[in-house]
Amino acid sequence: MDKKLYLGIDVGGTFTKLVLVNSACRVAAKNVISSRGFSDKAFFARELRAAINSMLSRHKEHLSQIKGAGIGLPGPVDFKSGVVLSLTNIAKWNRFALVSYLKRFFSFPIFIENDANCMALAESRLGAAKGASYALCLTLGTGVGGGLILDKKIYRGPFLLGGEIGHSPVALSGERCPCGGEACLERYVGNRAIMARIKKEFGRTVSLEEVSSLARRGDRKAIKIWDDVGRYIGLALSGVVNVLNPEVIVVGGGVSLAGGVLMRSIKRSVRKHAMKHLKGKVKVKRALLGSDAGVLGAALLAKEKLANT
Amino acid sequence: MDKKLYLGIDVGGTFTKLVLVNSACRVAAKNVISSRGFSDKAFFARELRAAINSMLSRHKEHLSQIKGAGIGLPGPVDFKSGVVLSLTNIAKWNRFALVSYLKRFFSFPIFIENDANCMALAESRLGAAKGASYALCLTLGTGVGGGLILDKKIYRGPFLLGGEIGHSPVALSGERCPCGGEACLERYVGNRAIMARIKKEFGRTVSLEEVSSLARRGDRKAIKIWDDVGRYIGLALSGVVNVLNPEVIVVGGGVSLAGGVLMRSIKRSVRKHAMKHLKGKVKVKRALLGSDAGVLGAALLAKEKLANT
Repeated sequence: MDKKLYLGIDVGGTFTKLVLVNSACRVAAKNVISSRGFSDKAFFARELRAAINSMLSRHKEHLSQIKGAGIGLPGPVDFKSGVVLSLTNIAKWNRFALVSYLKRFFSFPIFIENDANCMALAESRLGAAKGASYALCLTLGTGVGGGLILDKKIYRGPFLLGGEIGHSPVALSGERCPCGGEACLERYVGNRAIMARIKKEFGRTVSLEEVSSLARRGDRKAIKIWDDVGRYIGLALSGVVNVLNPEVIVVGGGVSLAGGVLMRSIKRSVRKHAMKHLKGKVKVKRALLGSDAGVLGAALLAKEKLANT
Repeated sequence: MDKKLYLGIDVGGTFTKLVLVNSACRVAAKNVISSRGFSDKAFFARELRAAINSMLSRHKEHLSQIKGAGIGLPGPVDFKSGVVLSLTNIAKWNRFALVSYLKRFFSFPIFIENDANCMALAESRLGAAKGASYALCLTLGTGVGGGLILDKKIYRGPFLLGGEIGHSPVALSGERCPCGGEACLERYVGNRAIMARIKKEFGRTVSLEEVSSLARRGDRKAIKIWDDVGRYIGLALSGVVNVLNPEVIVVGGGVSLAGGVLMRSIKRSVRKHAMKHLKGKVKVKRALLGSDAGVLGAALLAKEKLANT
């Protein structure tokens, strides 16, 4: 076993994952706990602390090897001060000093980061954007998240909301978005929007998996749904392509499991809207690390932060 | 007079400007030549060389003080190799090694840059975005250009086309653009698009100045035109705001002279589409340096490049 180990934690809406990885990001231990009740900040903090302790006590032999921990959270965080600014859909979570709290119980350094940024970091180091210095990672789910890697580093921006391509507007007017914007990409291609569209087209609720399967078998309505979703995603991506010229765009998240029919539509839309000098250069790829990207990215964050200090 | 001087050159479609500035960017000398015939690469190169020589011979007393030159060009350039990749609307200009050519005649270092990037550099050091580390500068004219400053540096991107917000798509489909894209912002708010819209609304050609003046006096058609232009600009800007979180957006170029009616519409559109955490933080301002931004930025480029080596 490698001498140095890093703890990665990915706080999700349903589950929270923990991994212990070595310097090569090989997973030495793994655990998953329920995120139920995490809307209560104090409860969340206690549960997280207990989950870390449980991981440590089951791997006592490695205790001295653990050099740091990274935590990915579904909302904007101030990675410098260790404060969670807010959590998506949880109003009571404003400005929680998570790192300060955990520091009282653990001796290793702890870092926090937005979960889409963690995913982008992992895909750029180990996944679909490996080797690229400039990459945009898009996660398609209930929310549409984005993480941006510029010059090999996570781009956070001066107001710590960098990479939020899910809130790129794709029309002059449309549905209001909880983010405060209007006609955001997420209103067109988020899980709920797709489900509403399916219900309208099919007259009943059909699962995303079933619609993907129907599309593969040539069902016109199903194909049209994924095609339209891809057109909107490609529209928003093309704006980023022309402004930032990323080498790779990684598409992940549950909705991306729709597969080929969606990916082809996204690529077509990017080819249609991107500048001619960029069309052949920007690669649009499916995420490689699946649902583990976030937790691996959190561990990588700790590893890289400690390597640079 | 300051000991160090820098030559700035801005190659425009109609005129090419030259300035000699000191370290504080105060202009010591200025000249303007016609850009007529510049579509011929060899002619352009000779004319530029002659214009530099003329500037130097008129300021012989400062010759030894000139530490470097910066040249802004209306197209993508490879600033590292000194090669002009292409010039907007001039097909024959592909891959011209301008710096190599000029180096044979002048002893000081010469740098080249895209003109919108030069404008962005100047506005971020001396103009409307002074003090900001993250800024986007938009130039509204026949073309719609963009220059991006991230972490105080010009952002070029891996394919050297960074900042091209004029080619952000603003609709799923629309007019094809010479850039190779479709429904680009420039097709909606570039000079020609606005002129076409004016002709449609008024049934005759009315100058931009006159439409601005009509709008100020409350003419509904005129107000509606600038309002729509601002809505599209704000749509494209909001995508960049949510992905990059710039502190300041600078709006310049001839069309920006429309003034208050246009700026108010742009700001309204950004407030409508930007995320709530960003709405109050991102400032949208009119450019301060006017038509001199490009040439000052070119001189600044040389100054800063030489300070960093």
